[in-house]
Amino acid sequence: MAGEADGAGAGGAVVDLNADLGEGFGRWHLTDDEALLDVVTSANVACGFHAGDPVTMRRVCERAAAGGVRIGAQVSYRDLAGFGRRSMDVPPQELAAEVAYQIGALAVFAAAAGAPVAYVKPHGALYNRAVHDEEQAAAVVEGVLLAGRLPVLGLPGSRLLAAAERAGLPAVPEAFADRAYTARGTLVARREPGAVVGEPAAVVERAVRIASGAGVTSLDGQHVPVAARSLCVHGDTPGAARLAVRVRAALEAAGVRVAAFA
Amino acid sequence: MAGEADGAGAGGAVVDLNADLGEGFGRWHLTDDEALLDVVTSANVACGFHAGDPVTMRRVCERAAAGGVRIGAQVSYRDLAGFGRRSMDVPPQELAAEVAYQIGALAVFAAAAGAPVAYVKPHGALYNRAVHDEEQAAAVVEGVLLAGRLPVLGLPGSRLLAAAERAGLPAVPEAFADRAYTARGTLVARREPGAVVGEPAAVVERAVRIASGAGVTSLDGQHVPVAARSLCVHGDTPGAARLAVRVRAALEAAGVRVAAFA
Amino acid sequence: MAGEADGAGAGGAVVDLNADLGEGFGRWHLTDDEALLDVVTSANVACGFHAGDPVTMRRVCERAAAGGVRIGAQVSYRDLAGFGRRSMDVPPQELAAEVAYQIGALAVFAAAAGAPVAYVKPHGALYNRAVHDEEQAAAVVEGVLLAGRLPVLGLPGSRLLAAAERAGLPAVPEAFADRAYTARGTLVARREPGAVVGEPAAVVERAVRIASGAGVTSLDGQHVPVAARSLCVHGDTPGAARLAVRVRAALEAAGVRVAAFA
Amino acid sequence: MAGEADGAGAGGAVVDLNADLGEGFGRWHLTDDEALLDVVTSANVACGFHAGDPVTMRRVCERAAAGGVRIGAQVSYRDLAGFGRRSMDVPPQELAAEVAYQIGALAVFAAAAGAPVAYVKPHGALYNRAVHDEEQAAAVVEGVLLAGRLPVLGLPGSRLLAAAERAGLPAVPEAFADRAYTARGTLVARREPGAVVGEPAAVVERAVRIASGAGVTSLDGQHVPVAARSLCVHGDTPGAARLAVRVRAALEAAGVRVAAFA
Repeated sequence: MAGEADGAGAGGAVVDLNADLGEGFGRWHLTDDEALLDVVTSANVACGFHAGDPVTMRRVCERAAAGGVRIGAQVSYRDLAGFGRRSMDVPPQELAAEVAYQIGALAVFAAAAGAPVAYVKPHGALYNRAVHDEEQAAAVVEGVLLAGRLPVLGLPGSRLLAAAERAGLPAVPEAFADRAYTARGTLVARREPGAVVGEPAAVVERAVRIASGAGVTSLDGQHVPVAARSLCVHGDTPGAARLAVRVRAALEAAGVRVAAFA
Repeated sequence: MAGEADGAGAGGAVVDLNADLGEGFGRWHLTDDEALLDVVTSANVACGFHAGDPVTMRRVCERAAAGGVRIGAQVSYRDLAGFGRRSMDVPPQELAAEVAYQIGALAVFAAAAGAPVAYVKPHGALYNRAVHDEEQAAAVVEGVLLAGRLPVLGLPGSRLLAAAERAGLPAVPEAFADRAYTARGTLVARREPGAVVGEPAAVVERAVRIASGAGVTSLDGQHVPVAARSLCVHGDTPGAARLAVRVRAALEAAGVRVAAFA
Repeated sequence: MAGEADGAGAGGAVVDLNADLGEGFGRWHLTDDEALLDVVTSANVACGFHAGDPVTMRRVCERAAAGGVRIGAQVSYRDLAGFGRRSMDVPPQELAAEVAYQIGALAVFAAAAGAPVAYVKPHGALYNRAVHDEEQAAAVVEGVLLAGRLPVLGLPGSRLLAAAERAGLPAVPEAFADRAYTARGTLVARREPGAVVGEPAAVVERAVRIASGAGVTSLDGQHVPVAARSLCVHGDTPGAARLAVRVRAALEAAGVRVAAFA
Repeated sequence: MAGEADGAGAGGAVVDLNADLGEGFGRWHLTDDEALLDVVTSANVACGFHAGDPVTMRRVCERAAAGGVRIGAQVSYRDLAGFGRRSMDVPPQELAAEVAYQIGALAVFAAAAGAPVAYVKPHGALYNRAVHDEEQAAAVVEGVLLAGRLPVLGLPGSRLLAAAERAGLPAVPEAFADRAYTARGTLVARREPGAVVGEPAAVVERAVRIASGAGVTSLDGQHVPVAARSLCVHGDTPGAARLAVRVRAALEAAGVRVAAFA
């Protein structure tokens, strides 16, 4: 890659690496929190509504703070049985209060560990719904505002980021190296064939291209620009942590600096 | 009452009046929050584990803050089905984290309303267990410390207050005007006959005696000194708010100043 | 009403009267179960997912069986916090199993009381969604079939009743005397003005007209035929039981026989 | 082993092999249900209170029925967060109804799969408490009776089995090959050193000895007779299914017939 000699690498690109953590509940474990905390720069910590018991929240916050990993509140619909993956018609007033509740619960563990809750990212069905549902997007932002003026992580072009911006909150666009994109720059729905990029080498290559500002090729072969300040690596699949390590190594080899978003 | 002329009244006695609030959940309502907030000086707000949904927590905090009523976190075992009234062998690490989680969740609504969470009071079975269970008392205090150096409200002589004191937290003893006492100064268990003082006039009289430093007469006729800086009035019975109004009026008529504990 | 002299009354009309019962949870109470059980012929018993704890389920079943009131399973989304009123994108396989789970849980109390679960009626958001959502309607029916060949109560013209019929289950159409209808025979959405008929006398009159086969007048003044074998009276409002008594008395005065559907 | 030549093997010994199954919840998995169903003769299916979502309950029942494995209701305190391992002071009326609720919910899936719920076994803290707590033991049995006259699986000498016998229910004593025993025949508490037998060869040997009627050696070296008609193999540890296979193979090699209890 030309230009690395001058130290800038990929045009001086910087990217944050985020992953979902603490997604067990009591006796049940899901994410390899220890391994992921060694790789990512931002930890989306489950807050108890789709996953995340208080003991796990405390431990993840302590280790994230000790390792210099930024702590984010991964807020969700109240749906343990469905892991927050079932879209719900939650009235805005309820949704705002539920979002704030979760952020507050996490904040106590983050603060006790010596770090703040540094951002908010909705989980699962709430994340997807806040892409296009104006009312729920605004309710999430209202909930964030109750808790403080925190940055919001979301899909570029989403109603969520638009609502965050309107409220004067930092809106941080993120991309997914392991998800197929449409020509319009949205994610291909999980149910459709080819929606998830399974081949690790392909995930790694896409991560580098996105972080370098080169965009991705859509499922139907078009070039799609992707403006992302953070890359999400999934943590709930076997081998997730190993793949994250490869992604980070490839990013750094390509001269992309991996660091929490400013 | 002699001595009132000099303005001190009952020896310059001051007492806090606390009640449980926000003890509904979603569609269900229990406590007459509006009426109680007009009477008490400290509101023990349910935090979602035995009762208390986020919308209610937010509203109660807003009204408490607006009315100058102090906000306390009423923390509980995780037991919606049992309303927190079933003692549970929660390991200390889990209990501490669950207590901190609840305080944090409430803190976001208190702060948004412009007031802090000013104290912590365990609810129901956790309250009773922390009277004598050293391990759980210490775990509650550990949970409080995760959230901050908050005062702890509890029974005089309880392990809970002792643990709070050892940790350097303000320990605030409270009394119950509507509960019978044993000669040793503990509460008569609810199951025993005569445990609850049902007659409003008797409740009012006991409140005044306790607040004035005169103690109570135990169920078996002995005089019992009761050192209390706060009086708990129950909020989950019909007529609770009316009784609280009478108690407060009688306290003030007796020259006792009703104010949040310092 | 002319024609009553011949003994047939309203053309020999018969109607079932159903209400939601047991909609408390633990410490919280909502429906006046005792009073309603004296009036209705079918009891929609909450099964624990939106309301309904096991002790209440047992007691309501015992009293319904003792009073000859038919027991139905009022199945819901898993949503205690939202009282089952928040529509959820539950995948069909999950929804079918959740419906069967609830019916089975109720069946044990019904059988112990000497009566069967005699029908199934979805609650709240699930009821409304099964009016038009083919997939969820089919999933509810699949869940019913897991539990047995039970009649399904629903809105005339709904996908739910159509799916029940396709599966060979008895489909029982019901009407609401206290809800406004559109000219097409559907219910006016609760959010719209005039959606709920508040005036008791109007509710009573509509009940008699519907049961007599005379239909209702829609919100915009059109005559709407309503084919209903059951009338739903609401149980979760103050005065609900008193209104139900008036409705039943008026039905019987008009010569309509009130009896559980065949 | 002498005597096998005559075909009886271990004196014609027969033993049931039971394991906990379906102990995931939604997105979370714990037990290797498929592998265990190939080995055991009785499946203790989680019923949703400590683990066990409806989809999993349905699938486990279908596979158990298809494989001729007996289905049992593994009933628990209502405690997802604590996996049913936290003892709770549940009043007897509530406990009985909660037990019945769980059995009923499972029964619908068992019946749909063509098999009945054939027995009941309490889980975790409820199992341990019903060993010595007369009131809770009686409440569990009352709950079983609400659901039907089902056999109850428990520890020999427990209050639970005594209560079952008093009620005329079949009481089935079970033993644990991987748990250390005291000289009195009770289990060594999990917290004590040596409580769990970790060495697979030792577990296998103890299983054969218990099933053959030879008893076990207690932790302090005494011979302890163990009258058990069922052996519990744990399913929630890595390698659990493999160990169960070894246990079964060794039992059969020793001439013990492995079959569901009569």
